[in-house]
Amino acid sequence: MTVSKDDKWTEKKISRREMLKLTGVGMAGVAIGASGLGGVMKAMGYELLEDDSTTAQNKVNFYGPHQSGIVTPVQTHIYFASLNVLLTSKQELQELFKQWTPLVVRLMNGETMVEATTNTRVPTGDTGEAAGLDAANLSITVGIGPSLFDKLAMQHLKPTALQDLPHFPKDQLQQEWTGGDLCIQACADDPQVAFHAVRNLVRAASGKVEIKWSQAGFNSFPAKGGTPRNLFAFKDGTGNPTDVQELKKAVWVDNGWLKDGSYLVARKIQMHLETWDRTSLKDQEATFGRHRDSGAPLGKTQEFDAFDVEEKDSNGEYLMPDTSHTHLARKSGVQMLRRSYSYASGVMSNTGAHDAGLLFISFQKDPAQFIAVQNSLGRMDKLNEYITHRGSAVFACFPGVQKGSYLGEALFNAL
Amino acid sequence: MTVSKDDKWTEKKISRREMLKLTGVGMAGVAIGASGLGGVMKAMGYELLEDDSTTAQNKVNFYGPHQSGIVTPVQTHIYFASLNVLLTSKQELQELFKQWTPLVVRLMNGETMVEATTNTRVPTGDTGEAAGLDAANLSITVGIGPSLFDKLAMQHLKPTALQDLPHFPKDQLQQEWTGGDLCIQACADDPQVAFHAVRNLVRAASGKVEIKWSQAGFNSFPAKGGTPRNLFAFKDGTGNPTDVQELKKAVWVDNGWLKDGSYLVARKIQMHLETWDRTSLKDQEATFGRHRDSGAPLGKTQEFDAFDVEEKDSNGEYLMPDTSHTHLARKSGVQMLRRSYSYASGVMSNTGAHDAGLLFISFQKDPAQFIAVQNSLGRMDKLNEYITHRGSAVFACFPGVQKGSYLGEALFNAL
Repeated sequence: MTVSKDDKWTEKKISRREMLKLTGVGMAGVAIGASGLGGVMKAMGYELLEDDSTTAQNKVNFYGPHQSGIVTPVQTHIYFASLNVLLTSKQELQELFKQWTPLVVRLMNGETMVEATTNTRVPTGDTGEAAGLDAANLSITVGIGPSLFDKLAMQHLKPTALQDLPHFPKDQLQQEWTGGDLCIQACADDPQVAFHAVRNLVRAASGKVEIKWSQAGFNSFPAKGGTPRNLFAFKDGTGNPTDVQELKKAVWVDNGWLKDGSYLVARKIQMHLETWDRTSLKDQEATFGRHRDSGAPLGKTQEFDAFDVEEKDSNGEYLMPDTSHTHLARKSGVQMLRRSYSYASGVMSNTGAHDAGLLFISFQKDPAQFIAVQNSLGRMDKLNEYITHRGSAVFACFPGVQKGSYLGEALFNAL
Repeated sequence: MTVSKDDKWTEKKISRREMLKLTGVGMAGVAIGASGLGGVMKAMGYELLEDDSTTAQNKVNFYGPHQSGIVTPVQTHIYFASLNVLLTSKQELQELFKQWTPLVVRLMNGETMVEATTNTRVPTGDTGEAAGLDAANLSITVGIGPSLFDKLAMQHLKPTALQDLPHFPKDQLQQEWTGGDLCIQACADDPQVAFHAVRNLVRAASGKVEIKWSQAGFNSFPAKGGTPRNLFAFKDGTGNPTDVQELKKAVWVDNGWLKDGSYLVARKIQMHLETWDRTSLKDQEATFGRHRDSGAPLGKTQEFDAFDVEEKDSNGEYLMPDTSHTHLARKSGVQMLRRSYSYASGVMSNTGAHDAGLLFISFQKDPAQFIAVQNSLGRMDKLNEYITHRGSAVFACFPGVQKGSYLGEALFNAL
């Protein structure tokens, strides 16, 4: 990350590396020299950056109707932090978001938190561990939890939908992984870039916020592209809404100060890998309702094949067992946008079993969608035998920001 | 990961992707078509793989005089596991290493643990989460700890050098991060590939080993290449030995059953990021003895500039303070190969501070080298104010394996 005085990357500007990516040189080889490529790209309306510094690379746009990190293509790493707010007034909260907004822009641009200074006798404006790294497609998504409205006497603006989730069968929630006044979801194609973002935003708000809980996670994508697998080896995210109409229906809030925002549900789900690994492939597939290798619904051959949960074979048995995860989830009739990450580090001190699982994250127009799916899974879901929900939180993620505005402006305008 | 009946990758064979990498197409653009490139490569003695499947990509060689994961170029991710052995005899231990050896080869080839089977009524031979991912430069390094020799009545073969490390000033070791009979260090450019390797080797040895402690970590490399930064933002690994003579002197054991092997020292070092971040750049640089941005020794301009710790300025002050980490480490006069990874996930439950730091790993001919450096740092090292050692372990890592042999054969031949 280097320091720049102004945002010098316009959408039309493109680095040499991006150009090579776009034109597919890295994939198949083409018979055009470098200068020839530049000409082609220029004709297409792209301007080749003079300064091919790393900072121009792999940048997600901050500004737009929605926050980044929701429909942004899933990155390989997440650092998710749930924060307690130490502030005592709405005004201070507004100041915090006004302070954070340009910092988020800088981080997503692959820049340092502040301009460099020659004064070495004060703490540095940026903690520095992302120096030399590019923006790594960093997205930052900010949301506020139900407890914040009570803390800062803003109950009248608390959306009815923003409530702590109800208790679900098999929940074994631990306070150390549950709740929070505010969240920062930092996703990037580099774990150090994601952590750097959270660390520096929290540091810039020292005395105003503290981390209640945090979780790092990863997704690994097949070299040939496609849906990543969770630690049970099943593809995760196949049924996600994809087109604008589906997203409008399932993900974006359509009224009030949260219009064009979305509700984020986070669940820390421990996966009992050792138990799972002792199960036959047939039972694993009957548990998910899908084929492990292809991701196809049981009875179908391709991952994205359409299926009807009521379809039965010649013996009158469901093709997709009615206790399977996919069967029950589909039966709820609701969609949400899942954007989960695996975690694996350490062992359970009492058993020596892997402390591993899924940081489940979903975005929806209303947490009721998540609740409906979870209730449909209920006590029936065969997957319950292999997982335990350890943490839970829900946040209202602000709409996107236009230039000149700041995160959460609509909320403060409504106060 | 796909299943192959035989090892079809020879050193001379090369995938299209590797070819493009080698010829630098991705970097600068060249004016040769794909077929032309193939001709050039063929003339250089490379054979282009017919089957350009993902499994052929990014593969580290298992066989050789030394184990992989020591001088292998540092990958972006580690999954390090320290294991307790549940076995009761040397013979069973030998069987374990004979069992593991071909499995390690398969994993490093980007293959599944075993041939695929059509029997879906038994647990699968491979846990499957690496399906579709390539080998990701996976290296696997296996070592044995001092406690193993006592457990299995092999004390007469325990090298004198293989002892638990002595207590150092400022150590606050916790049993849950300390010791172990055996270690598996899995490093890869994909966290899921590294975790998959440890998970499957431990699973294949179910009832024979159990995980005592494990730690995931990451390193982020500048797009332009160079030394990665730790979470204090300083480049870590600058002073490493690089050429064959230096490695011979500092890293490889030169006699006994461990000849061509090396000692691995692992230290889980918590970094107090919040305290560090309140320190001025000048103090940070005086603590490390290097410039943060460039990595240059204090008073020099380039990362790899030579320096003399005794050099003073015109006022008679050391250019590199005599309480700085680099000054004291260099003063010990010994070298070792550092191969550390950062970790960051979660917060300390009592303080809300980041639970982050460094999984320090070094390889040396004798743990005495690490002890000498640590003693030189002693109570003087200014860095002590910002770190706490939480875990410690030492392992004797076997020499490399020749085809037809197995991990640790020299040890069992010496029994």
